[in-house]
Amino acid sequence: MTGSLVIVGVGPGDAAYTTPAASLALAEATDLIGYGLYLDRVPQREGQTRHASGNRVEIDRARHALELAVQGRRVAVVSGGDAGVFAMAAAIFEAVDAGDPAWRALDIRVEPGVTAMLAVAAEVGAPLGGDFCAISLSDNLKSWATVERRLRAAAEADFVISLYNAKSLARPHQLGAALDILRDVKAGDTVVLFVRAAGTAEARVTVTTLAEADPSIADMRTLVMIGASTTRLIERDGARPWVYTPRSERTPE
Amino acid sequence: MTGSLVIVGVGPGDAAYTTPAASLALAEATDLIGYGLYLDRVPQREGQTRHASGNRVEIDRARHALELAVQGRRVAVVSGGDAGVFAMAAAIFEAVDAGDPAWRALDIRVEPGVTAMLAVAAEVGAPLGGDFCAISLSDNLKSWATVERRLRAAAEADFVISLYNAKSLARPHQLGAALDILRDVKAGDTVVLFVRAAGTAEARVTVTTLAEADPSIADMRTLVMIGASTTRLIERDGARPWVYTPRSERTPE
Repeated sequence: MTGSLVIVGVGPGDAAYTTPAASLALAEATDLIGYGLYLDRVPQREGQTRHASGNRVEIDRARHALELAVQGRRVAVVSGGDAGVFAMAAAIFEAVDAGDPAWRALDIRVEPGVTAMLAVAAEVGAPLGGDFCAISLSDNLKSWATVERRLRAAAEADFVISLYNAKSLARPHQLGAALDILRDVKAGDTVVLFVRAAGTAEARVTVTTLAEADPSIADMRTLVMIGASTTRLIERDGARPWVYTPRSERTPE
Repeated sequence: MTGSLVIVGVGPGDAAYTTPAASLALAEATDLIGYGLYLDRVPQREGQTRHASGNRVEIDRARHALELAVQGRRVAVVSGGDAGVFAMAAAIFEAVDAGDPAWRALDIRVEPGVTAMLAVAAEVGAPLGGDFCAISLSDNLKSWATVERRLRAAAEADFVISLYNAKSLARPHQLGAALDILRDVKAGDTVVLFVRAAGTAEARVTVTTLAEADPSIADMRTLVMIGASTTRLIERDGARPWVYTPRSERTPE
């Protein structure tokens, strides 16, 4: 068996944020598999076969990739951001764990990438300067009670919180519910960021507070970040404020 | 004032993980500032001035960078991993917040990178497949009581936990203390990873359990990752097991 499978994170959007290792892995593949919008970001190469799919059939896509690899193909599964963060890598290993024992002999590797919250942070300053967490608001695969418990714990521990999958057409109400939970614990003047399409030319940043945060401004491409109690703004003339979280709990020198 | 300052994350080690955007920012700089080990990773270019420093003078380095930028230089501050995650970006904005108001008029931006936990995850499979957090064990700038509180909250909420700055010469005992706190809350068979130099040719992976985790195997280049209750191993013949966290709380199909 000479096939292989690499799960590739292409970063937040702009090709300048795709690592050379990821680009090489994509160039060497015979078969590319992924959600159509991510595949569209990969340069066309002669002789490569593309298998585009919708974004809600991850486990089927994972099995398809593994079957092609067993047939001897060099398969690249394409994810946005980092493949290991709320993306395809976990789905592939779930499929391996539950599937054909022959899949365990395959050459499977993961190419890391710049995940969305890092691109969001870079757009605005350094909001991840302290301890932080990332929570997916999707309850397709975990219970909403788990999401609520993690939101509350993260707020009480004063982590900076990044909300992935904050909104989708099928789940329009979770983000508002999540913000309400955070309002129970955190101060109303806590910094909140809505950042759409970070790491692309169309990036759009809204800096607001927890009291005023309006979930309706988020869409499927928006990451919502809630600051720690120490997260601060640096006001500037004629420009958006920079946002950062000091490394220290003490006042800056 | 035409100077600029860019804070660049060069990724976990190998140049193949430095984004093209980061490489371009480094190439365009007149002055490079950073911890010597990170500067050594940047290709030499004629006409560039390098300002190497030790790794414990971040706020001085930040002010130096800002002063050079005010003088009209194109300054790049070099960080390992992602500049916004326990690295130089927060120090720069702290210095701006507390410093010369003229610094607020500077062109300051951040180039994101692949942070260590993403490289660690890619080395072993997909351990960040669920909700996760990152905690620095350094108590140089925050109290150990805060670290303890966050460890306990993260364990109770069943996040995958990445420990940055797990060990240093000046802080040899924190990692053992942190593991003891986690043992109070989490099961002894919880998966624990010690990954040294992830994203380099010298990467070294130890897969163990919380009950058996030995803090003495960590050094300054080791990231320690503690799984969620659902984090699993996929055993293989003649190879390290893959490690992943299912997206679901339920048993894989």
